[in-house]
Amino acid sequence: MSAVLAVDIGGTTFAAAAIGADRGMIARVEVPIGTDPTATLATLIGGFAPDGLIGVGIGSAGPLDPASGSVSPVNIPAWRRYPIAAAVADLTGLPVGLAGDAQCMALGEYWHRAAAPSMLGLVVSTGIGGGLVLDGEPYFGRSGNAGHIGHISIDPAGARCPCGGTGCVETVASGPSMTAYARSRGWTGPDARALSTDASAGNPVARLAFARGAAALATAILTTAALVDIDTVVVGGGVAAAGEVLFGPLRQALAEQAGLGFLQHVTVTPTTLARDAGLYGAAALAFALAGVPV
Amino acid sequence: MSAVLAVDIGGTTFAAAAIGADRGMIARVEVPIGTDPTATLATLIGGFAPDGLIGVGIGSAGPLDPASGSVSPVNIPAWRRYPIAAAVADLTGLPVGLAGDAQCMALGEYWHRAAAPSMLGLVVSTGIGGGLVLDGEPYFGRSGNAGHIGHISIDPAGARCPCGGTGCVETVASGPSMTAYARSRGWTGPDARALSTDASAGNPVARLAFARGAAALATAILTTAALVDIDTVVVGGGVAAAGEVLFGPLRQALAEQAGLGFLQHVTVTPTTLARDAGLYGAAALAFALAGVPV
Repeated sequence: MSAVLAVDIGGTTFAAAAIGADRGMIARVEVPIGTDPTATLATLIGGFAPDGLIGVGIGSAGPLDPASGSVSPVNIPAWRRYPIAAAVADLTGLPVGLAGDAQCMALGEYWHRAAAPSMLGLVVSTGIGGGLVLDGEPYFGRSGNAGHIGHISIDPAGARCPCGGTGCVETVASGPSMTAYARSRGWTGPDARALSTDASAGNPVARLAFARGAAALATAILTTAALVDIDTVVVGGGVAAAGEVLFGPLRQALAEQAGLGFLQHVTVTPTTLARDAGLYGAAALAFALAGVPV
Repeated sequence: MSAVLAVDIGGTTFAAAAIGADRGMIARVEVPIGTDPTATLATLIGGFAPDGLIGVGIGSAGPLDPASGSVSPVNIPAWRRYPIAAAVADLTGLPVGLAGDAQCMALGEYWHRAAAPSMLGLVVSTGIGGGLVLDGEPYFGRSGNAGHIGHISIDPAGARCPCGGTGCVETVASGPSMTAYARSRGWTGPDARALSTDASAGNPVARLAFARGAAALATAILTTAALVDIDTVVVGGGVAAAGEVLFGPLRQALAEQAGLGFLQHVTVTPTTLARDAGLYGAAALAFALAGVPV
Protein backbone atom coordinates (compact mmCIF):
# COMPACT_ATOMS: atom_id res chain seq x y z
CA MET A 1 0.00 0.00 0.00
CA SER A 2 1.30 3.43 -0.92
CA ALA A 3 1.64 6.19 1.65
CA VAL A 4 2.25 9.94 1.60
CA LEU A 5 3.57 12.57 3.95
CA ALA A 6 1.00 15.11 5.14
CA VAL A 7 2.14 18.41 6.65
CA ASP A 8 -0.03 20.91 8.50
CA ILE A 9 1.44 24.38 9.02
CA GLY A 10 -0.49 26.16 11.76
CA GLY A 11 0.12 29.46 13.50
CA THR A 12 1.53 27.92 16.67
CA THR A 13 2.34 24.28 15.85
CA PHE A 14 3.47 22.24 12.87
CA ALA A 15 2.18 18.68 12.45
CA ALA A 16 3.20 15.92 10.07
CA ALA A 17 1.94 12.40 9.46
CA ALA A 18 2.50 9.45 7.19
CA ILE A 19 -0.90 8.37 5.91
CA GLY A 20 -1.78 5.37 3.77
CA ALA A 21 -4.12 5.11 0.82
CA ASP A 22 -6.46 3.16 3.12
CA ARG A 23 -6.76 6.37 5.20
CA GLY A 24 -4.77 4.86 8.00
CA MET A 25 -2.43 7.11 9.97
CA ILE A 26 0.94 5.40 10.17
CA ALA A 27 2.87 7.94 12.22
CA ARG A 28 2.16 11.44 13.50
CA VAL A 29 4.29 14.14 15.10
CA GLU A 30 3.52 17.67 16.24
CA VAL A 31 5.96 20.37 17.34
CA PRO A 32 5.71 24.02 18.42
CA ILE A 33 7.11 26.25 15.68
CA GLY A 34 9.61 27.90 18.07
CA THR A 35 11.74 30.86 17.05
CA ASP A 36 12.97 29.43 13.75
CA PRO A 37 10.06 28.02 11.76
CA THR A 38 12.30 26.91 8.90
CA ALA A 39 14.48 24.85 11.28
CA THR A 40 11.31 23.44 12.87
CA LEU A 41 10.05 22.42 9.45
CA ALA A 42 13.34 20.66 8.63
CA THR A 43 13.26 18.79 11.95
CA LEU A 44 9.63 17.80 11.43
CA ILE A 45 10.15 16.51 7.89
CA GLY A 46 13.48 14.92 8.79
CA GLY A 47 11.73 12.43 11.04
CA PHE A 48 10.13 10.67 8.06
CA ALA A 49 11.96 8.44 5.61
CA PRO A 50 11.10 9.48 2.04
CA ASP A 51 11.84 5.97 0.74
CA GLY A 52 8.43 4.64 1.71
CA LEU A 53 6.50 7.69 0.53
CA ILE A 54 5.21 8.71 -2.89
CA GLY A 55 4.55 12.39 -2.28
CA VAL A 56 3.90 15.23 0.11
CA GLY A 57 0.80 17.35 0.71
CA ILE A 58 1.02 20.57 2.68
CA GLY A 59 -1.85 22.48 4.20
CA SER A 60 -0.79 25.90 5.42
CA ALA A 61 -2.24 28.92 7.15
CA GLY A 62 -2.66 31.67 4.55
CA PRO A 63 -2.31 33.69 2.58
CA LEU A 64 -0.54 31.45 0.12
CA ASP A 65 0.32 31.52 -3.54
CA PRO A 66 -0.06 28.03 -4.99
CA ALA A 67 1.42 29.11 -8.33
CA SER A 68 4.81 29.85 -6.76
CA GLY A 69 4.37 27.36 -3.90
CA SER A 70 4.95 30.09 -1.33
CA VAL A 71 3.19 30.98 1.91
CA SER A 72 2.98 34.10 4.09
CA PRO A 73 1.14 32.89 7.21
CA VAL A 74 -0.20 35.88 9.14
CA ASN A 75 0.94 34.36 12.44
CA ILE A 76 4.47 33.45 11.27
CA PRO A 77 6.14 36.82 10.62
CA ALA A 78 9.44 35.12 9.69
CA TRP A 79 7.76 33.64 6.61
CA ARG A 80 6.82 36.08 3.89
CA ARG A 81 6.53 34.48 0.46
CA TYR A 82 8.38 31.57 1.98
CA PRO A 83 8.90 28.97 -0.79
CA ILE A 84 7.65 26.08 1.31
CA ALA A 85 6.88 23.75 -1.61
CA ALA A 86 10.43 24.04 -2.94
CA ALA A 87 11.89 23.74 0.59
CA VAL A 88 9.98 20.52 1.27
CA ALA A 89 10.80 19.13 -2.18
CA ASP A 90 14.50 19.74 -1.42
CA LEU A 91 14.22 18.06 1.97
CA THR A 92 12.39 14.97 0.69
CA GLY A 93 13.03 14.62 -3.02
CA LEU A 94 9.30 14.06 -3.43
CA PRO A 95 6.60 15.88 -5.43
CA VAL A 96 4.82 18.42 -3.25
CA GLY A 97 1.23 19.73 -3.32
CA LEU A 98 0.18 22.87 -1.43
CA ALA A 99 -3.23 24.19 -0.37
CA GLY A 100 -4.74 26.31 2.37
CA ASP A 101 -5.29 24.84 5.83
CA ALA A 102 -9.06 25.25 5.67
CA GLN A 103 -9.11 23.87 2.12
CA CYS A 104 -7.24 20.80 3.42
CA MET A 105 -9.63 20.53 6.35
CA ALA A 106 -12.60 20.43 3.93
CA LEU A 107 -10.84 17.93 1.70
CA GLY A 108 -9.90 15.77 4.69
CA GLU A 109 -13.48 15.66 5.91
CA TYR A 110 -14.65 14.80 2.42
CA TRP A 111 -12.07 12.07 1.92
CA HIS A 112 -12.57 10.55 5.35
CA ARG A 113 -16.34 10.63 5.40
CA ALA A 114 -17.18 10.35 1.72
CA ALA A 115 -20.03 12.59 2.78
CA ALA A 116 -21.96 14.93 0.49
CA PRO A 117 -20.36 15.52 -2.93
CA SER A 118 -20.43 19.27 -2.25
CA MET A 119 -19.57 20.78 1.09
CA LEU A 120 -18.07 23.68 2.98
CA GLY A 121 -15.36 23.02 5.54
CA LEU A 122 -15.27 25.87 8.04
CA VAL A 123 -12.46 26.51 10.50
CA VAL A 124 -13.32 28.68 13.50
CA SER A 125 -10.18 29.41 15.44
CA THR A 126 -7.80 32.37 15.83
CA GLY A 127 -9.04 33.23 12.36
CA ILE A 128 -11.95 32.02 10.26
CA GLY A 129 -11.14 29.94 7.18
CA GLY A 130 -13.05 27.85 4.71
CA GLY A 131 -12.61 25.30 1.97
CA LEU A 132 -14.99 24.02 -0.69
CA VAL A 133 -15.54 20.61 -2.20
CA LEU A 134 -17.79 20.99 -5.26
CA ASP A 135 -19.16 18.01 -7.18
CA GLY A 136 -16.69 15.69 -5.49
CA GLU A 137 -13.57 17.73 -6.24
CA PRO A 138 -11.68 20.19 -4.08
CA TYR A 139 -12.31 23.66 -5.48
CA PHE A 140 -9.27 25.88 -5.03
CA GLY A 141 -10.11 28.56 -7.62
CA ARG A 142 -8.20 30.57 -10.19
CA SER A 143 -5.52 31.83 -7.82
CA GLY A 144 -5.92 29.06 -5.23
CA ASN A 145 -7.74 31.35 -2.79
CA ALA A 146 -11.31 30.01 -2.97
CA GLY A 147 -13.13 29.58 0.33
CA HIS A 148 -12.01 32.81 2.04
CA ILE A 149 -15.20 32.93 4.12
CA GLY A 150 -13.54 34.78 7.02
CA HIS A 151 -13.20 37.89 4.92
CA ILE A 152 -16.62 38.33 3.46
CA SER A 153 -18.41 41.38 4.79
CA ILE A 154 -21.68 40.79 6.62
CA ASP A 155 -22.11 44.24 8.13
CA PRO A 156 -21.36 47.59 6.46
CA ALA A 157 -21.42 49.19 9.92
CA GLY A 158 -19.06 46.57 11.33
CA ALA A 159 -15.49 46.84 12.55
CA ARG A 160 -12.56 47.57 10.28
CA CYS A 161 -10.68 44.34 9.56
CA PRO A 162 -6.88 44.07 9.31
CA CYS A 163 -7.43 42.71 5.77
CA GLY A 164 -8.61 46.18 4.71
CA GLY A 165 -12.31 45.32 4.55
CA THR A 166 -15.15 46.26 6.89
CA GLY A 167 -17.47 43.99 8.84
CA CYS A 168 -15.65 40.77 7.90
CA VAL A 169 -16.95 37.59 9.55
CA GLU A 170 -13.58 37.25 11.26
CA THR A 171 -14.08 40.56 13.11
CA VAL A 172 -17.07 39.03 14.90
CA ALA A 173 -16.74 35.25 15.04
CA SER A 174 -13.06 34.39 15.54
CA GLY A 175 -11.89 33.42 19.03
CA PRO A 176 -10.07 36.72 19.64
CA SER A 177 -13.04 38.73 18.29
CA MET A 178 -15.53 36.98 20.55
CA THR A 179 -13.18 37.38 23.51
CA ALA A 180 -12.67 41.09 22.79
CA TYR A 181 -16.42 41.61 22.54
CA ALA A 182 -17.00 39.87 25.88
CA ARG A 183 -14.28 41.97 27.52
CA SER A 184 -15.89 45.15 26.21
CA ARG A 185 -18.95 44.04 28.19
CA GLY A 186 -17.08 43.41 31.41
CA TRP A 187 -15.96 39.77 31.04
CA THR A 188 -12.43 39.28 32.39
CA GLY A 189 -11.35 35.78 31.37
CA PRO A 190 -8.04 35.02 29.63
CA ASP A 191 -9.02 33.49 26.27
CA ALA A 192 -11.62 31.86 24.00
CA ARG A 193 -11.37 28.56 25.83
CA ALA A 194 -12.30 30.27 29.10
CA LEU A 195 -15.07 32.10 27.27
CA SER A 196 -16.58 28.81 26.12
CA THR A 197 -16.32 27.34 29.62
CA ASP A 198 -18.10 30.40 31.02
CA ALA A 199 -20.74 30.29 28.29
CA SER A 200 -21.39 26.63 29.09
CA ALA A 201 -21.77 27.60 32.74
CA GLY A 202 -24.41 30.18 31.81
CA ASN A 203 -22.43 33.43 31.98
CA PRO A 204 -24.70 35.83 30.05
CA VAL A 205 -21.94 37.95 28.50
CA ALA A 206 -20.05 34.86 27.33
CA ARG A 207 -23.27 33.44 25.89
CA LEU A 208 -23.97 36.73 24.12
CA ALA A 209 -20.49 36.71 22.58
CA PHE A 210 -21.05 33.19 21.22
CA ALA A 211 -24.55 34.06 19.98
CA ARG A 212 -23.16 37.08 18.15
CA GLY A 213 -20.37 35.04 16.60
CA ALA A 214 -22.80 32.27 15.67
CA ALA A 215 -25.13 34.75 13.95
CA ALA A 216 -22.22 36.00 11.84
CA LEU A 217 -21.19 32.44 10.96
CA ALA A 218 -24.79 31.63 10.01
CA THR A 219 -24.91 34.60 7.62
CA ALA A 220 -21.62 33.52 6.06
CA ILE A 221 -22.76 29.91 5.73
CA LEU A 222 -26.08 30.89 4.13
CA THR A 223 -24.22 33.25 1.78
CA THR A 224 -21.99 30.38 0.71
CA ALA A 225 -24.99 28.09 0.29
CA ALA A 226 -26.79 30.71 -1.84
CA LEU A 227 -23.77 31.14 -4.10
CA VAL A 228 -22.50 27.57 -4.53
CA ASP A 229 -25.58 25.59 -3.49
CA ILE A 230 -24.08 23.40 -0.77
CA ASP A 231 -26.13 22.09 2.15
CA THR A 232 -23.42 20.32 4.13
CA VAL A 233 -21.09 22.23 6.42
CA VAL A 234 -18.45 20.63 8.63
CA VAL A 235 -16.97 22.88 11.30
CA GLY A 236 -13.58 22.47 12.93
CA GLY A 237 -10.98 24.62 14.67
CA GLY A 238 -10.24 25.47 18.29
CA VAL A 239 -13.35 27.56 18.87
CA ALA A 240 -15.60 24.94 17.27
CA ALA A 241 -14.24 22.46 19.82
CA ALA A 242 -16.40 24.37 22.33
CA GLY A 243 -19.27 22.21 21.06
CA GLU A 244 -22.89 23.00 21.77
CA VAL A 245 -22.08 26.40 23.17
CA LEU A 246 -21.32 27.33 19.54
CA PHE A 247 -23.44 24.82 17.61
CA GLY A 248 -26.66 25.50 19.54
CA PRO A 249 -26.81 29.22 18.68
CA LEU A 250 -25.42 28.49 15.21
CA ARG A 251 -28.29 26.12 14.33
CA GLN A 252 -30.78 28.59 15.79
CA ALA A 253 -29.33 31.46 13.75
CA LEU A 254 -29.41 29.35 10.57
CA ALA A 255 -33.10 28.58 11.14
CA GLU A 256 -33.86 32.24 11.80
CA GLN A 257 -31.92 33.64 8.86
CA ALA A 258 -32.60 31.12 6.09
CA GLY A 259 -34.93 32.55 3.46
CA LEU A 260 -35.13 30.74 0.12
CA GLY A 261 -36.29 27.13 0.28
CA PHE A 262 -33.03 25.54 -0.84
CA LEU A 263 -31.25 27.28 2.06
CA GLN A 264 -33.47 25.73 4.71
CA HIS A 265 -31.79 22.35 4.67
CA VAL A 266 -28.26 23.43 5.50
CA THR A 267 -26.78 21.19 8.19
CA VAL A 268 -23.77 22.02 10.33
CA THR A 269 -21.86 19.29 12.11
CA PRO A 270 -18.61 19.32 14.06
CA THR A 271 -15.58 17.69 12.55
CA THR A 272 -15.02 14.15 13.76
CA LEU A 273 -11.34 14.33 12.87
CA ALA A 274 -10.47 17.02 15.42
CA ARG A 275 -6.99 18.36 14.72
CA ASP A 276 -6.28 15.76 12.08
CA ALA A 277 -8.73 16.86 9.36
CA GLY A 278 -6.09 19.10 7.78
CA LEU A 279 -3.57 16.25 7.74
CA TYR A 280 -6.03 13.91 6.03
CA GLY A 281 -6.76 16.62 3.47
CA ALA A 282 -3.06 17.22 2.83
CA ALA A 283 -2.72 13.46 2.33
CA ALA A 284 -5.63 13.40 -0.12
CA LEU A 285 -3.93 16.25 -2.01
CA ALA A 286 -0.68 14.27 -2.21
CA PHE A 287 -2.45 11.12 -3.46
CA ALA A 288 -4.30 13.20 -6.08
CA LEU A 289 -1.00 14.71 -7.22
CA ALA A 290 0.51 11.22 -7.51
CA GLY A 291 -2.50 10.03 -9.50
CA VAL A 292 -3.38 7.42 -6.89
CA PRO A 293 -7.13 7.00 -6.53
CA VAL A 294 -8.15 7.03 -2.86
CA MET B 1 -24.41 23.39 -39.25
CA SER B 2 -26.57 22.34 -36.32
CA ALA B 3 -28.86 24.76 -34.57
CA VAL B 4 -30.88 24.82 -31.35
CA LEU B 5 -33.88 26.64 -29.98
CA ALA B 6 -33.15 29.02 -27.11
CA VAL B 7 -35.98 30.20 -24.86
CA ASP B 8 -35.79 33.02 -22.32
CA ILE B 9 -38.63 33.18 -19.77
CA GLY B 10 -38.68 36.62 -18.19
CA GLY B 11 -41.12 38.25 -15.82
CA THR B 12 -42.79 40.39 -18.48
CA THR B 13 -41.73 38.97 -21.86
CA PHE B 14 -40.82 35.62 -23.36
CA ALA B 15 -38.14 35.47 -26.05
CA ALA B 16 -37.05 32.63 -28.32
CA ALA B 17 -34.36 32.28 -30.95
CA ALA B 18 -32.84 29.73 -33.26
CA ILE B 19 -29.08 29.89 -32.77
CA GLY B 20 -26.38 28.03 -34.69
CA ALA B 21 -23.26 26.31 -33.41
CA ASP B 22 -21.29 29.19 -34.97
CA ARG B 23 -23.05 31.49 -32.43
CA GLY B 24 -25.10 33.07 -35.20
CA MET B 25 -28.67 34.08 -34.40
CA ILE B 26 -30.91 32.71 -37.16
CA ALA B 27 -34.28 33.99 -35.99
CA ARG B 28 -35.55 35.76 -32.88
CA VAL B 29 -39.02 36.57 -31.53
CA GLU B 30 -40.20 38.23 -28.35
CA VAL B 31 -43.74 38.45 -26.98
CA PRO B 32 -45.37 39.86 -23.84
CA ILE B 33 -46.50 37.02 -21.61
CA GLY B 34 -50.12 38.26 -21.53
CA THR B 35 -52.77 36.72 -19.31
CA ASP B 36 -52.08 33.10 -20.21
CA PRO B 37 -48.35 32.38 -20.02
CA THR B 38 -48.80 28.75 -21.08
CA ALA B 39 -50.62 29.81 -24.26
CA THR B 40 -47.93 32.44 -24.87
CA LEU B 41 -45.26 29.79 -24.55
CA ALA B 42 -47.05 27.51 -27.03
CA THR B 43 -47.38 30.37 -29.52
CA LEU B 44 -43.73 31.33 -29.09
CA ILE B 45 -42.41 27.79 -29.56
CA GLY B 46 -44.90 27.07 -32.34
CA GLY B 47 -43.20 29.61 -34.57
CA PHE B 48 -40.10 27.42 -34.91
CA ALA B 49 -39.89 24.25 -36.95
CA PRO B 50 -38.35 21.47 -34.82
CA ASP B 51 -37.09 19.66 -37.96
CA GLY B 52 -34.01 21.85 -38.27
CA LEU B 53 -33.19 21.88 -34.56
CA ILE B 54 -31.31 19.41 -32.36
CA GLY B 55 -32.47 20.58 -28.92
CA VAL B 56 -33.90 23.27 -26.73
CA GLY B 57 -32.35 25.28 -23.92
CA ILE B 58 -34.53 27.26 -21.55
CA GLY B 59 -33.40 30.04 -19.23
CA SER B 60 -36.12 31.00 -16.78
CA ALA B 61 -36.73 33.44 -13.98
CA GLY B 62 -36.58 31.54 -10.71
CA PRO B 63 -36.97 29.78 -8.47
CA LEU B 64 -36.72 26.60 -10.51
CA ASP B 65 -36.21 22.94 -9.82
CA PRO B 66 -33.97 21.47 -12.51
CA ALA B 67 -34.50 17.93 -11.20
CA SER B 68 -38.20 18.01 -12.04
CA GLY B 69 -37.82 20.54 -14.86
CA SER B 70 -40.31 22.88 -13.21
CA VAL B 71 -40.32 26.62 -12.63
CA SER B 72 -42.16 28.97 -10.25
CA PRO B 73 -41.18 32.45 -11.50
CA VAL B 74 -41.94 35.03 -8.81
CA ASN B 75 -43.44 37.39 -11.38
CA ILE B 76 -45.65 34.78 -13.12
CA PRO B 77 -48.21 33.80 -10.45
CA ALA B 78 -49.98 31.42 -12.86
CA TRP B 79 -46.88 29.21 -12.88
CA ARG B 80 -46.11 27.37 -9.65
CA ARG B 81 -44.02 24.24 -10.17
CA TYR B 82 -44.95 24.57 -13.83
CA PRO B 83 -43.36 21.62 -15.68
CA ILE B 84 -41.87 23.77 -18.42
CA ALA B 85 -39.26 21.25 -19.56
CA ALA B 86 -41.92 18.57 -20.14
CA ALA B 87 -44.26 21.11 -21.77
CA VAL B 88 -41.59 22.24 -24.24
CA ALA B 89 -40.51 18.65 -24.91
CA ASP B 90 -44.14 17.85 -25.77
CA LEU B 91 -44.41 20.88 -28.04
CA THR B 92 -41.18 20.22 -29.93
CA GLY B 93 -40.29 16.55 -29.56
CA LEU B 94 -36.75 17.69 -28.73
CA PRO B 95 -34.50 17.18 -25.68
CA VAL B 96 -34.79 20.13 -23.30
CA GLY B 97 -32.27 21.69 -20.90
CA LEU B 98 -33.32 24.12 -18.17
CA ALA B 99 -31.35 26.64 -16.10
CA GLY B 100 -31.87 29.94 -14.33
CA ASP B 101 -32.03 33.16 -16.34
CA ALA B 102 -28.96 34.63 -14.68
CA GLN B 103 -27.12 31.31 -15.03
CA CYS B 104 -27.89 31.42 -18.75
CA MET B 105 -26.78 35.03 -18.94
CA ALA B 106 -23.40 34.08 -17.42
CA LEU B 107 -23.09 31.09 -19.73
CA GLY B 108 -24.03 33.21 -22.75
CA GLU B 109 -21.39 35.79 -21.94
CA TYR B 110 -18.84 33.03 -21.45
CA TRP B 111 -19.75 31.26 -24.68
CA HIS B 112 -19.88 34.41 -26.74
CA ARG B 113 -16.74 36.02 -25.41
CA ALA B 114 -14.64 33.01 -24.46
CA ALA B 115 -13.49 35.35 -21.72
CA ALA B 116 -12.04 34.31 -18.39
CA PRO B 117 -12.44 30.60 -17.53
CA SER B 118 -14.15 31.60 -14.28
CA MET B 119 -16.64 34.42 -14.05
CA LEU B 120 -19.74 35.78 -12.39
CA GLY B 121 -22.65 36.91 -14.55
CA LEU B 122 -24.74 39.42 -12.62
CA VAL B 123 -28.24 40.54 -13.62
CA VAL B 124 -29.42 43.83 -12.11
CA SER B 125 -33.04 44.34 -12.99
CA THR B 126 -36.41 43.99 -11.22
CA GLY B 127 -34.53 41.44 -9.15
CA ILE B 128 -30.84 40.62 -8.72
CA GLY B 129 -29.62 37.32 -10.12
CA GLY B 130 -26.30 35.65 -10.74
CA GLY B 131 -24.69 32.76 -12.53
CA LEU B 132 -21.24 31.22 -12.21
CA VAL B 133 -18.86 29.75 -14.74
CA LEU B 134 -16.05 27.96 -12.87
CA ASP B 135 -13.01 26.50 -14.62
CA GLY B 136 -14.73 26.80 -17.99
CA GLU B 137 -17.95 25.00 -17.01
CA PRO B 138 -21.30 26.41 -15.96
CA TYR B 139 -21.70 25.74 -12.26
CA PHE B 140 -25.33 25.09 -11.38
CA GLY B 141 -24.85 23.33 -8.02
CA ARG B 142 -26.41 20.42 -6.22
CA SER B 143 -30.01 21.58 -6.57
CA GLY B 144 -29.40 23.82 -9.59
CA ASN B 145 -29.64 26.99 -7.52
CA ALA B 146 -26.03 28.19 -7.47
CA GLY B 147 -25.46 31.89 -8.07
CA HIS B 148 -28.31 33.29 -5.96
CA ILE B 149 -26.38 36.49 -5.28
CA GLY B 150 -29.53 38.61 -4.89
CA HIS B 151 -30.37 36.86 -1.66
CA ILE B 152 -27.16 37.00 0.27
CA SER B 153 -27.37 39.23 3.30
CA ILE B 154 -24.99 42.17 3.42
CA ASP B 155 -26.55 44.04 6.34
CA PRO B 156 -27.99 42.53 9.54
CA ALA B 157 -29.80 45.86 10.15
CA GLY B 158 -31.20 45.89 6.61
CA ALA B 159 -34.73 45.57 5.33
CA ARG B 160 -36.73 42.36 5.57
CA CYS B 161 -36.73 40.62 2.16
CA PRO B 162 -39.76 38.82 0.70
CA CYS B 163 -37.53 35.70 0.55
CA GLY B 164 -37.59 35.56 4.35
CA GLY B 165 -34.07 36.86 4.87
CA THR B 166 -32.84 40.24 6.10
CA GLY B 167 -30.63 42.74 4.35
CA CYS B 168 -30.50 40.86 1.04
CA VAL B 169 -28.67 42.58 -1.80
CA GLU B 170 -31.95 42.71 -3.69
CA THR B 171 -33.53 44.90 -0.98
CA VAL B 172 -30.98 47.61 -1.80
CA ALA B 173 -29.76 47.24 -5.37
CA SER B 174 -32.69 46.09 -7.51
CA GLY B 175 -34.47 48.68 -9.68
CA PRO B 176 -37.57 48.79 -7.46
CA SER B 177 -35.44 48.97 -4.29
CA MET B 178 -33.38 51.88 -5.59
CA THR B 179 -36.54 53.64 -6.76
CA ALA B 180 -38.25 53.11 -3.39
CA TYR B 181 -35.22 54.48 -1.58
CA ALA B 182 -35.15 57.60 -3.79
CA ARG B 183 -38.86 58.16 -3.22
CA SER B 184 -38.35 57.92 0.52
CA ARG B 185 -35.99 60.86 0.08
CA GLY B 186 -38.42 62.96 -1.93
CA TRP B 187 -37.74 61.83 -5.52
CA THR B 188 -40.98 61.57 -7.50
CA GLY B 189 -40.13 59.84 -10.77
CA PRO B 190 -42.00 56.85 -12.16
CA ASP B 191 -39.40 54.05 -12.38
CA ALA B 192 -35.76 52.92 -12.40
CA ARG B 193 -35.25 54.16 -15.95
CA ALA B 194 -36.29 57.67 -14.89
CA LEU B 195 -34.07 57.32 -11.82
CA SER B 196 -31.05 56.60 -14.01
CA THR B 197 -31.86 59.53 -16.30
CA ASP B 198 -32.10 61.82 -13.29
CA ALA B 199 -28.88 60.42 -11.80
CA SER B 200 -27.10 61.07 -15.10
CA ALA B 201 -28.43 64.64 -15.00
CA GLY B 202 -26.93 65.10 -11.53
CA ASN B 203 -29.98 64.76 -9.30
CA PRO B 204 -28.41 64.18 -5.87
CA VAL B 205 -31.07 61.83 -4.52
CA ALA B 206 -31.01 59.71 -7.65
CA ARG B 207 -27.21 59.58 -7.50
CA LEU B 208 -27.37 58.59 -3.84
CA ALA B 209 -29.78 55.75 -4.64
CA PHE B 210 -27.39 54.42 -7.31
CA ALA B 211 -24.36 54.83 -5.02
CA ARG B 212 -26.17 52.87 -2.30
CA GLY B 213 -27.15 50.12 -4.72
CA ALA B 214 -23.63 50.04 -6.17
CA ALA B 215 -22.09 49.67 -2.69
CA ALA B 216 -24.35 46.67 -2.02
CA LEU B 217 -23.44 45.13 -5.38
CA ALA B 218 -19.74 45.67 -4.66
CA THR B 219 -20.05 43.83 -1.33
CA ALA B 220 -21.85 40.96 -3.03
CA ILE B 221 -19.28 40.79 -5.84
CA LEU B 222 -16.34 40.79 -3.41
CA THR B 223 -18.07 38.13 -1.32
CA THR B 224 -18.42 35.97 -4.42
CA ALA B 225 -14.79 36.61 -5.35
CA ALA B 226 -13.62 35.67 -1.84
CA LEU B 227 -15.58 32.42 -1.92
CA VAL B 228 -15.03 31.17 -5.48
CA ASP B 229 -11.97 33.20 -6.48
CA ILE B 230 -13.27 34.84 -9.67
CA ASP B 231 -12.00 38.20 -10.88
CA THR B 232 -14.24 38.72 -13.90
CA VAL B 233 -17.78 40.01 -13.53
CA VAL B 234 -20.11 40.77 -16.44
CA VAL B 235 -23.20 42.78 -15.57
CA GLY B 236 -26.46 42.83 -17.51
CA GLY B 237 -30.14 43.53 -16.88
CA GLY B 238 -32.36 46.57 -17.25
CA VAL B 239 -30.78 48.59 -14.45
CA ALA B 240 -27.26 47.81 -15.65
CA ALA B 241 -28.26 49.35 -19.00
CA ALA B 242 -28.07 52.68 -17.17
CA GLY B 243 -24.32 52.50 -17.83
CA GLU B 244 -21.83 54.72 -16.04
CA VAL B 245 -24.40 55.99 -13.58
CA LEU B 246 -24.17 52.47 -12.10
CA PHE B 247 -20.69 51.35 -13.18
CA GLY B 248 -18.91 54.49 -11.95
CA PRO B 249 -20.03 54.13 -8.30
CA LEU B 250 -19.69 50.33 -8.58
CA ARG B 251 -16.01 50.51 -9.54
CA GLN B 252 -15.41 53.10 -6.80
CA ALA B 253 -17.13 50.91 -4.19
CA LEU B 254 -15.10 47.87 -5.28
CA ALA B 255 -11.86 49.83 -4.86
CA GLU B 256 -12.95 51.09 -1.45
CA GLN B 257 -14.16 47.75 -0.10
CA ALA B 258 -11.60 45.28 -1.46
CA GLY B 259 -9.33 43.99 1.29
CA LEU B 260 -7.26 40.88 0.55
CA GLY B 261 -4.85 41.15 -2.35
CA PHE B 262 -6.56 38.66 -4.63
CA LEU B 263 -9.78 40.73 -4.40
CA GLN B 264 -8.17 43.89 -5.70
CA HIS B 265 -8.19 42.86 -9.33
CA VAL B 266 -11.90 42.25 -9.78
CA THR B 267 -13.14 43.87 -12.98
CA VAL B 268 -16.76 44.64 -13.80
CA THR B 269 -17.88 45.20 -17.37
CA PRO B 270 -21.30 45.63 -18.92
CA THR B 271 -22.69 42.86 -21.07
CA THR B 272 -22.15 43.39 -24.77
CA LEU B 273 -25.04 41.08 -25.62
CA ALA B 274 -27.75 43.28 -24.10
CA ARG B 275 -31.01 41.33 -23.86
CA ASP B 276 -29.64 38.38 -25.80
CA ALA B 277 -27.08 37.06 -23.30
CA GLY B 278 -29.69 34.73 -21.78
CA LEU B 279 -30.65 33.38 -25.20
CA TYR B 280 -27.03 32.64 -26.07
CA GLY B 281 -26.61 30.88 -22.72
CA ALA B 282 -29.76 28.81 -23.27
CA ALA B 283 -28.36 27.87 -26.68
CA ALA B 284 -25.02 26.86 -25.14
CA LEU B 285 -26.96 24.71 -22.67
CA ALA B 286 -28.83 22.98 -25.50
CA PHE B 287 -25.63 22.31 -27.45
CA ALA B 288 -23.99 20.90 -24.31
CA LEU B 289 -27.00 18.64 -23.77
CA ALA B 290 -26.76 17.43 -27.36
CA GLY B 291 -23.04 16.77 -26.93
CA VAL B 292 -22.14 19.25 -29.67
CA PRO B 293 -18.91 21.11 -28.86
CA VAL B 294 -19.36 24.84 -29.39
